Amino acid sequence: MRTIYWDYENECVRLIDQTKLPDSLEVISCKSVEELAEAIKRLSIRGAPALEAAGGYGVALAANIAKDMPAAEAKEFIRYKAELLSKTRPTAVNLFCGIERVLKTALNAEDPEEIARLALDEAEKIANEDVERNRRMGRYGAELIPDNAVVITYCNTGRLATVDWGTALGVVRSAVEQGKKVEVIACETRPLNQGSRLTCWELMQDGIDTTLITDSMAGYVMRKRKIDCVIVGADRIVRDAVFNKVGTYSLAILAKEHGIPFYVAAPSTTFDWNKSEEDVVVEERSREELTYCNVKCMKTLIAPENVKIYNPAFDATPLSYVTALITEKGIIKKPYSVNVPKVLGF
Amino acid sequence: MRTIYWDYENECVRLIDQTKLPDSLEVISCKSVEELAEAIKRLSIRGAPALEAAGGYGVALAANIAKDMPAAEAKEFIRYKAELLSKTRPTAVNLFCGIERVLKTALNAEDPEEIARLALDEAEKIANEDVERNRRMGRYGAELIPDNAVVITYCNTGRLATVDWGTALGVVRSAVEQGKKVEVIACETRPLNQGSRLTCWELMQDGIDTTLITDSMAGYVMRKRKIDCVIVGADRIVRDAVFNKVGTYSLAILAKEHGIPFYVAAPSTTFDWNKSEEDVVVEERSREELTYCNVKCMKTLIAPENVKIYNPAFDATPLSYVTALITEKGIIKKPYSVNVPKVLGF
Repeated sequence: MRTIYWDYENECVRLIDQTKLPDSLEVISCKSVEELAEAIKRLSIRGAPALEAAGGYGVALAANIAKDMPAAEAKEFIRYKAELLSKTRPTAVNLFCGIERVLKTALNAEDPEEIARLALDEAEKIANEDVERNRRMGRYGAELIPDNAVVITYCNTGRLATVDWGTALGVVRSAVEQGKKVEVIACETRPLNQGSRLTCWELMQDGIDTTLITDSMAGYVMRKRKIDCVIVGADRIVRDAVFNKVGTYSLAILAKEHGIPFYVAAPSTTFDWNKSEEDVVVEERSREELTYCNVKCMKTLIAPENVKIYNPAFDATPLSYVTALITEKGIIKKPYSVNVPKVLGF
Repeated sequence: MRTIYWDYENECVRLIDQTKLPDSLEVISCKSVEELAEAIKRLSIRGAPALEAAGGYGVALAANIAKDMPAAEAKEFIRYKAELLSKTRPTAVNLFCGIERVLKTALNAEDPEEIARLALDEAEKIANEDVERNRRMGRYGAELIPDNAVVITYCNTGRLATVDWGTALGVVRSAVEQGKKVEVIACETRPLNQGSRLTCWELMQDGIDTTLITDSMAGYVMRKRKIDCVIVGADRIVRDAVFNKVGTYSLAILAKEHGIPFYVAAPSTTFDWNKSEEDVVVEERSREELTYCNVKCMKTLIAPENVKIYNPAFDATPLSYVTALITEKGIIKKPYSVNVPKVLGF
């Protein structure tokens, strides 16, 4: 099942409600753009590639609702709903990309029925491209995973962060599909526990051997067991560093100290090669993420309410710590300054 | 205020209920050994040195209750209550030490009033020795802390883990007492959050500048800020490694990678110099610590209920990563094989 998809029978967007995981798997229906906007706001769906598809499907949903309206009214309705959708997550660039791409294609037509058809086609294309890209990335990356591998991963880079298959977890899935035995050690990924809540859940659904540890245990696990590699995703790759969920940098250092390869799996759209680490401002998130155990909206105070906190969402790992970059265009090795432009065609 | 003390007016043991922190500071009274045993069981008091004092005060409490009984009956009563107390935390060696030490001294006398007096004297001695040891350790360790220092610490090694002052946090307190400005960055310390719940609370009580981070942020903080040292406690120091709260080893590697001194503060009683890393079996704790956010007994599921977990309570940091050991007998530098026996008088 995809994380998000169009339900042709009921003419609505359906998505896995990630706020209900890991307790229960609930697929919710969004029959109005408002319902989808609410789902995005409360993080029922998250992850950059998944949000791009959500943006696309949102516009397709608006166009479908408007298909019996007069043409001018339909276009105004669609633009209005797209605006509403884009305000749900103000910093989610991929969401805007999905919205804009579908708007641009669909609003070329004049007939509301034609607009609705074009919008849905383009939204499906976004979703399918994501899956295809992840599959290709997975096939390339699987070459790096030996049989009987033990792999450490971080955060959620799987089906739930994308439309399907995943990036770093997609590499694991592809290796398993090729018949390799892979054990995954998932770091819980504080403060929002995407590792324990989402990664463990989706790997267990696929029957992949998964062990949960706290982030603080990764070093000791590397010391006590033979770990074949660490594999993580990326939010943005600049010419000297990988920006990813905070904790990635520590893992990279621990991997280096133990002589373990450290791989980053990310589609070519993640690369921002004209920028460097110092150009990127890291988002700092709310204090409540550290002072409360607030996963799934249940709040337990776990620190003094007024303690000073530091809560960067991401950290930067210098590319020198990265053994190889895995993309849908191939595996890229050092020197990255030469090989990234070559493989990705910059 | 001490973590645990004898209340002379009400003839009972009083202790800070750590299960109520950081929400509220509650000092509970234990007028019976059963009440104290319950408090130990539910972790209202924890930390090796604090438990040694709790064991001692528990026997003193039993002796005080028995002081009007006939001599034989009093002794039997005290032994029975000591037995009950020792069953609260089956692996807490320090608890047994405290119980045994007070029993041995007090039961030398024959008169129940005399027994009660001796027991309380010995219990007070245990508590005072702990504070004095921590003060001495603090004074030595403070030499290593520069003015305007930024220090990273882990778990709770403060007043709440001891009778007062603390071990690693005692070093910070001593530096502050000497007029130095010290900022502490406290790692939350998963899975039980002793860092966020206890360390932040007690440092804020003392007005010491404290910033809370997740364990996964330590590497990035070292990259972005000038950190003067990492300072942690120890549960056991063998001739090639330091056993301490899991996560210590990762911190030691991160410190090394950034050229930051890594200090371990622990009393001489922590050393077990005839043993090596391979002789020590690390306690693995319950799965619920990782699958639930269960600090303060409120349970929120944060992982699939049936996920495989690995939950070692401690890890081992090879002594080669440790810049210096801080003890109440002085600072010990490398080579440890020579200098530990020399300073500690083995």
